[in-house]
Amino acid sequence: MTVSVAATKSAYEQLTAKLRAIGSLQQCEALLKYDRMVFMPQSQETAQARGVQLSALASVVHEKTTDKSLFQLLEEAEKDLPKEDADAPRVLELTRKTLEENSRVTAELAARKAKHGALAHSSWAQAREKEDFALFVPALTTCFEIAKEEAAAKRIDESVTLYDQMLDHFEPGMKMERIDQVFEEIERALVPLLERVRNSETKPSTTPLEGTFDIAMQKKVCKEVVTQLGFDEARGRIDVAVHPFTSSASPADVRITSRFSDNEWQMGLLATIHEGGHAMYEQSLGKSGLEIDHALSMGTHESQSLFWERMVAKSLPFWKWIAPKLNEAFESFDYTPEQLYDAVNAIKPNNCIRVEADELTYPLHVLLRYRLEKEIITDKLTVEEIPAKWNELMMDLLGVQVPNDSLGCLQDIHWSAFAIGYFATYLLGSSTAAQLAYYCEKDIPDMYALIEKGQFEPLKAWLTDKVHKHGRRYKSLDDLLEAQVGEKLNPKYFIDYLEEKYSKLYNC
Amino acid sequence: MTVSVAATKSAYEQLTAKLRAIGSLQQCEALLKYDRMVFMPQSQETAQARGVQLSALASVVHEKTTDKSLFQLLEEAEKDLPKEDADAPRVLELTRKTLEENSRVTAELAARKAKHGALAHSSWAQAREKEDFALFVPALTTCFEIAKEEAAAKRIDESVTLYDQMLDHFEPGMKMERIDQVFEEIERALVPLLERVRNSETKPSTTPLEGTFDIAMQKKVCKEVVTQLGFDEARGRIDVAVHPFTSSASPADVRITSRFSDNEWQMGLLATIHEGGHAMYEQSLGKSGLEIDHALSMGTHESQSLFWERMVAKSLPFWKWIAPKLNEAFESFDYTPEQLYDAVNAIKPNNCIRVEADELTYPLHVLLRYRLEKEIITDKLTVEEIPAKWNELMMDLLGVQVPNDSLGCLQDIHWSAFAIGYFATYLLGSSTAAQLAYYCEKDIPDMYALIEKGQFEPLKAWLTDKVHKHGRRYKSLDDLLEAQVGEKLNPKYFIDYLEEKYSKLYNC
Repeated sequence: MTVSVAATKSAYEQLTAKLRAIGSLQQCEALLKYDRMVFMPQSQETAQARGVQLSALASVVHEKTTDKSLFQLLEEAEKDLPKEDADAPRVLELTRKTLEENSRVTAELAARKAKHGALAHSSWAQAREKEDFALFVPALTTCFEIAKEEAAAKRIDESVTLYDQMLDHFEPGMKMERIDQVFEEIERALVPLLERVRNSETKPSTTPLEGTFDIAMQKKVCKEVVTQLGFDEARGRIDVAVHPFTSSASPADVRITSRFSDNEWQMGLLATIHEGGHAMYEQSLGKSGLEIDHALSMGTHESQSLFWERMVAKSLPFWKWIAPKLNEAFESFDYTPEQLYDAVNAIKPNNCIRVEADELTYPLHVLLRYRLEKEIITDKLTVEEIPAKWNELMMDLLGVQVPNDSLGCLQDIHWSAFAIGYFATYLLGSSTAAQLAYYCEKDIPDMYALIEKGQFEPLKAWLTDKVHKHGRRYKSLDDLLEAQVGEKLNPKYFIDYLEEKYSKLYNC
Repeated sequence: MTVSVAATKSAYEQLTAKLRAIGSLQQCEALLKYDRMVFMPQSQETAQARGVQLSALASVVHEKTTDKSLFQLLEEAEKDLPKEDADAPRVLELTRKTLEENSRVTAELAARKAKHGALAHSSWAQAREKEDFALFVPALTTCFEIAKEEAAAKRIDESVTLYDQMLDHFEPGMKMERIDQVFEEIERALVPLLERVRNSETKPSTTPLEGTFDIAMQKKVCKEVVTQLGFDEARGRIDVAVHPFTSSASPADVRITSRFSDNEWQMGLLATIHEGGHAMYEQSLGKSGLEIDHALSMGTHESQSLFWERMVAKSLPFWKWIAPKLNEAFESFDYTPEQLYDAVNAIKPNNCIRVEADELTYPLHVLLRYRLEKEIITDKLTVEEIPAKWNELMMDLLGVQVPNDSLGCLQDIHWSAFAIGYFATYLLGSSTAAQLAYYCEKDIPDMYALIEKGQFEPLKAWLTDKVHKHGRRYKSLDDLLEAQVGEKLNPKYFIDYLEEKYSKLYNC
């Protein structure tokens, strides 16, 4: 008598084998999408063919994730947990959540969402071009409706609010009430700080940013820097794209893109470091091939990019390390670390655009969007009222007059892409980055001396130990921080950091 | 009452929808493989992860192609042919052949073949490094055995010989008896012609090939040339790889690679043109997404690369067009079209290596391999006897003494990769290229005047009309040629072309 191999495998083993296969197919999807953004020829016809390929892959993934045998194996595995595997309970918990949520979104809703997404994107682009939010109102209204419908379908516990369900998609376990608490503290501190900075007579010079800078040389410097920080090029690539992003096709194949302009060097360098932070997180995740070794949340991800971009690369010691390199790299370029530090940290007081904002005003851009989307989802604000409310808040929070909707409420792609509940993660990430830097320095007292020497390895190791290697073993960013640094997310560190830096820089 | 969409679709429509989805997944596989060769980071770990991704995709494709419902739909569609679709009968015929052949190869055999392939590759590489064929004998013996086993499993008609079944995989419809006929004619003509050339006192100068040539400039020239020939960069890319190849992820995404050396310019240019020929075929195939719009055969494919590389780019009019470009591109480079023509057409009389061979000796390298593998499959030769027989034939056919096995019977990767029955397609392609050029000039009498002016569009359009657009609508290369140029494959044109060119060039 022969016993088949399958019969000798436990339900847990069979389940995880199936999940790994699904994970591999999702990695294929990631690679096809990266190729589309970076390498793919640009004809309409090519884009269509790629769309067909991605949809064929997506439907295989859908078939496999909604396969009834997967649920059966999950139930069997839940009843017969493998005792030797400490991760097993969490693996099953994550699997149940993902499978249940997927199965609750009907094919009809998914198709309607995809179809409306294409329409909403073009409606947004058109309204933005014409600087007229009214053109976008019908499509955006439907986006919010579909997002609510999807959240209502997905929530397993009916007592969860729709907005909490949306937040959970990007930032699992962090509810609105908790985020409100953190954000209110930030707002209370930053609005008056920005006011002081705006009124200060001291203005750091941004002259070092100006000039003409060879792009090949910028790329060379960026590559050297990000590799020195800890990005492993043997298990990744650096390319160029219009909007910098990071994509992982496995922890051994993490690719970042950056962009460069020949009339300033700051953008490319800081974008590369930012994406490098995301990439080091992805490269340091565990290799189980299961969801437990995915990045914990969008906020956690952003904390990694911002740890390197802000806490490291916007610190004076970093400029002490890099100034000689830049002075050597660029022609007629000769600045002190202090001059470079001042230039990259100067705020742009009249800027309306989130993605161009400095680290002091950026949080306020996020607060504005978070507040608006919350009010729309809870029916306290209508889509038509967005522009007026947007402009009012821009004045209240940032002291900025918005000249038109394209520079105001039409600037972001997020809502038209159903990314509602996403904006908060940017600020959760900023705040977490500062908190991690605080605790990192407690554990590594010479942290800034190491940065000045270009010795980043201990910092990366610390982040891997505290954040990366845990994947999704914790249920939320709060839980991760509490377990790893002894304290839930606390905006105090972020506020103190900005307060200290900007009161000194602006002498206010 | 609602009628489901599926119920209103015919069996043929349902079948082709499923086949298109499988085709899309195979395009994903092609893209992942291209990425692996060209863009993927080079760590062992990355390669492993990619292997897992490809195997996940392959098993989905296997599941879908062996799904019983596909066979049921095929049978239903065969009984109820859609009358309005002229392609339908051929679509079903190709589908039945592919599905039946796939289903006849057991999972056990496929797995054993894959496993032995890895072993055979490393055994071949090791034997080659040590210049010792004996080390490769056991692994190669198993390769031939597995290939025979697979051919025996796949053949639907038991009267088909194993070697014909193998040939059919690469060159459908062209059997050994027919190929023998063509190849014997070529051998009878080329052996004495080569003898005359070797004994001639006239030796074309290869000085124009020598020097130092900026690689960026070579790439620029190659890109301009291949685009001018008709390669559509909006629906393709040009990259660099160790071994030049072409890969199609759809007719709208065809990528070619080339390689460049800074101490000669010929290799990169001719490799780019060669791959460009393959790519133009792929770019001009129909867009049904079904097998009927795949390239007809490997020999047909090679006829397209060689049409451009030899019939066009090795002709004097081509050098009249390109000489001024090269003279301008390269420093201290100033040659007449005639000098360049002579240099690129000079033969290398003592060369042992197929891939480095010129167009006169290349056919003889192919004949040797074809004869050997045929004898092995029909048990007239043992694997142990390969080196002696190889070296004997090298002397008989080419007049060349083989110094060691690495420069002899260990030079090709094909047999270790189970590509048995493949070599013939190179020579079928050469011969077809010459035949097509003959008929092209009959239809476009000023063909060579157009080449001299760099006007390649009519040539490409002619090839598309005669070859590309037909995909797999004909059953064999012979059938295609007979229908499109009025004559089955006839080696006369190839022989006449070489005879005329080399008797003139070598004055013999």
